[in-house]
Amino acid sequence: MADDKGLTPRSEDFATWYNEVVLRAELADYSPVRGSMVIRPYGYGLWENMQRALDDMFKETGHQNAYFPLFIPLSFISREAQHVEGFAKEMALVTHTRLIAGADGGLVPDPASELEEPLVVRPTSETIIYDAFSKWVQRYRDLPLLINQWANIVRWEMRTRLFLRTAEFLWQEGHTAHATPEEAEEEAVRMLGVYRTFMEEWMAMPVITGRKSPSETFPGADHTYACEALMQDNRALQAGTTHNLGQNFSRQFDFTFQSESGGEEYAWSTSWGVSTRLVGGLVMTHGDDAGIVLPPKLAPYQVVVVPIFRTDEERAAVLGKADQVMSALRDAGVRVELDGRETLSPGAKFYEWERKGVPLRVEIGPKDVAKEQLVVVRRVVAEGQDRKAFLPEAEALASVPGILDDVQDRMFEAADRRRRTNTHRLDDYEAFRELMEGQGGFVYAGWCGSEACEEKVQEDTKATIRVLPGEEHRSPTPPDRCLVCGGAAQAEAVWARAY
Amino acid sequence: MADDKGLTPRSEDFATWYNEVVLRAELADYSPVRGSMVIRPYGYGLWENMQRALDDMFKETGHQNAYFPLFIPLSFISREAQHVEGFAKEMALVTHTRLIAGADGGLVPDPASELEEPLVVRPTSETIIYDAFSKWVQRYRDLPLLINQWANIVRWEMRTRLFLRTAEFLWQEGHTAHATPEEAEEEAVRMLGVYRTFMEEWMAMPVITGRKSPSETFPGADHTYACEALMQDNRALQAGTTHNLGQNFSRQFDFTFQSESGGEEYAWSTSWGVSTRLVGGLVMTHGDDAGIVLPPKLAPYQVVVVPIFRTDEERAAVLGKADQVMSALRDAGVRVELDGRETLSPGAKFYEWERKGVPLRVEIGPKDVAKEQLVVVRRVVAEGQDRKAFLPEAEALASVPGILDDVQDRMFEAADRRRRTNTHRLDDYEAFRELMEGQGGFVYAGWCGSEACEEKVQEDTKATIRVLPGEEHRSPTPPDRCLVCGGAAQAEAVWARAY
Repeated sequence: MADDKGLTPRSEDFATWYNEVVLRAELADYSPVRGSMVIRPYGYGLWENMQRALDDMFKETGHQNAYFPLFIPLSFISREAQHVEGFAKEMALVTHTRLIAGADGGLVPDPASELEEPLVVRPTSETIIYDAFSKWVQRYRDLPLLINQWANIVRWEMRTRLFLRTAEFLWQEGHTAHATPEEAEEEAVRMLGVYRTFMEEWMAMPVITGRKSPSETFPGADHTYACEALMQDNRALQAGTTHNLGQNFSRQFDFTFQSESGGEEYAWSTSWGVSTRLVGGLVMTHGDDAGIVLPPKLAPYQVVVVPIFRTDEERAAVLGKADQVMSALRDAGVRVELDGRETLSPGAKFYEWERKGVPLRVEIGPKDVAKEQLVVVRRVVAEGQDRKAFLPEAEALASVPGILDDVQDRMFEAADRRRRTNTHRLDDYEAFRELMEGQGGFVYAGWCGSEACEEKVQEDTKATIRVLPGEEHRSPTPPDRCLVCGGAAQAEAVWARAY
Repeated sequence: MADDKGLTPRSEDFATWYNEVVLRAELADYSPVRGSMVIRPYGYGLWENMQRALDDMFKETGHQNAYFPLFIPLSFISREAQHVEGFAKEMALVTHTRLIAGADGGLVPDPASELEEPLVVRPTSETIIYDAFSKWVQRYRDLPLLINQWANIVRWEMRTRLFLRTAEFLWQEGHTAHATPEEAEEEAVRMLGVYRTFMEEWMAMPVITGRKSPSETFPGADHTYACEALMQDNRALQAGTTHNLGQNFSRQFDFTFQSESGGEEYAWSTSWGVSTRLVGGLVMTHGDDAGIVLPPKLAPYQVVVVPIFRTDEERAAVLGKADQVMSALRDAGVRVELDGRETLSPGAKFYEWERKGVPLRVEIGPKDVAKEQLVVVRRVVAEGQDRKAFLPEAEALASVPGILDDVQDRMFEAADRRRRTNTHRLDDYEAFRELMEGQGGFVYAGWCGSEACEEKVQEDTKATIRVLPGEEHRSPTPPDRCLVCGGAAQAEAVWARAY
């Protein structure tokens, strides 16, 4: 794609816009292996900032990182029959461990190296982790065990999309073990809160939190909690989940402990994860037709400085000033990048950094040096704000951290306003159907609790129950009839078509 | 292994001591998959500190992180024939992508899911990375490209040892591309220096740096540089390597750029890596018969506070004081842990933290509270130093950062003294043979440059040329005859038996 070609507008084709913007903001690239992706430095820098913020929050809540093997014995996967049933049959299988020269001069797997038992490339690590936990824990005082792992994961997806669904992706998976069911439940709820805080305060992405219906619960879990965000095409994105696993995995892996009263009990466990899918969610929450838009708290560069000059004399003055500005902003703790490339016009640079979503641009030309001023340009503005400000230099430098905070807040507000605008409360099934076939969005409605009603909705509209919202997200007066069958509502549900 | 059982002394069986200490310091554990390991939280905390220090140094030298796919098409591996020839035939191969129920009720690979082309689990990423680089670089101004990746790697090793050689391990791999051979050479040498600085200043592990002989050069590299450390059993450990790859991979992956003069040229590239093997090196450099010994700059906990009390009254006083001490040390930037477990005796805690190599222990008992003093105990002492000091509280707290610096320095000095004691300069082959069959160590000697002499030494003694030392490590008057054949020396070489 040429640099000067505009992006497909979101209104025309959201999916095409998404792919283009991910590639052209240089977040990621396709790889020669079907379904895999390359995360480019700019996209990885964003992921590193996400990791750091999450990792700090995990450590503040008492978790430690560890690392478990990539390969899982097939027998472990077979053991959790319910687990396998649910989601994990499409997996990469290692069957051989040596290459030899083939007939045509190329390399082929050596038949003599065939493994007796194939190994599964981890689709998630519950089995291998609870096997290790069972060795480490003897007594109640060894609990709780609060572990997190940053790792790559492989699920052989057939239809893949950059960041949203790829055969290999990066994630973190928390795995904890507790002496009582209450503690495990508390942990699952606590980590849902950590995720929500991260998504709202760092990603500026509002989410609805709640419990999954049984049909959407993680296989092997007693129940699953999720954070659900609404993308600009009015489809929901499951952005993170936490699972209360009860004693299910402990029983499979004979993970017991001696309780305070001396008896032998199965441990109570949880798991929870978010992945590089969050990068896709960030793009689809904030991006516009000029490119991606990054919240300042996560942006690899919060400010880009673009020097503008023609003559050598101007060059010296402008670059000298740019250096001062860079130092001053760095000292203020701002992540700032100087775009000193002399082979690109200022205009080309403006387009590039807008496409890459840098929150603020500072332009410095010879006139600005003479006037001791800086031109500060926002990537996005809220209503009533000016996009471009000419400010005395000292004032400009002093105001940058405050502007970044303001941008972060306004981005959340705008996304939350959009979510509210596209959230509906309906009790008429035909109106619901029409909405789902048209503009989409979140729909709050009553649900009788039957899988039959869930299935009917999915067949009719492709929508599913995203969550049974938690207290914090429930309607003041919850519906009393099921949206679908009109029976007594067991719960309020949030429906949407989802990624 | 019971907690109260001592470790096998190093002098009795170094290999057994190593395995025991790694397991009992809770750095790692065996996994149910042959050749794989679990990195436990304490070992992973150490690795995280190593990562952070290295990552900062990589970023300071202009590198950015990115992520490339785990799976590499077999055809890519075949393409670099020389590369394949060298080292990489023992690889994990993915051949199927789905499980189905087998005849016996278990799961088996679905024959219908067999891949047309098997995928190789990356043994290193040169091929897939230079394929991506070839798409990203058009013109000379797109260079240099300075990339690093933190990733897991799989090589199907037959004989494995925790951290030192495992089928899966964690590492970083730097990959850079340049417009000229001089810049590539400069990069390979720069990163060798970064590694040396890290090993010496952070790990307190002295290394000899230099170039590998052609027979030990990475397949596909023009030449390889290495850092070689001497373990306490007088065997060498290759702790890190950097490779000047010339245009070899660029030619295989058609990675060209338009030069300043307008011509089409192949890019010049480098790669460099260190791995979790460094954890093993750290253990074998500093550990003693009581456990591992961690340098303060990398220790997950630099100080452990152990409260000692019997009565409830003492408990309140001692824990109150411990809290104050914790806060004061944290405020001083010290990584400090309170061992508040009431089910273990103080003595059992002392043994545990010594086994885990924590540099300093602070003991607080009722008498210490009364006297406003702290007991500060060093894990290791240099000659003439006291292991235990009773210090007025304020003085103790103020002195901790300085003591930690001193411990770091003394650890390097001790390791360097040991290395010097066990480094020999020989010109008599029989004396060399006797040394290698006996106590071992590094031997500086002349080498004629022939592979035949290298092979003879390896057959006779299992020793190999570790490096042709760089200027900084060469003898003042280099030898003029080959140690083996007596012919004219082409270079000075450092020989040792190695891990």
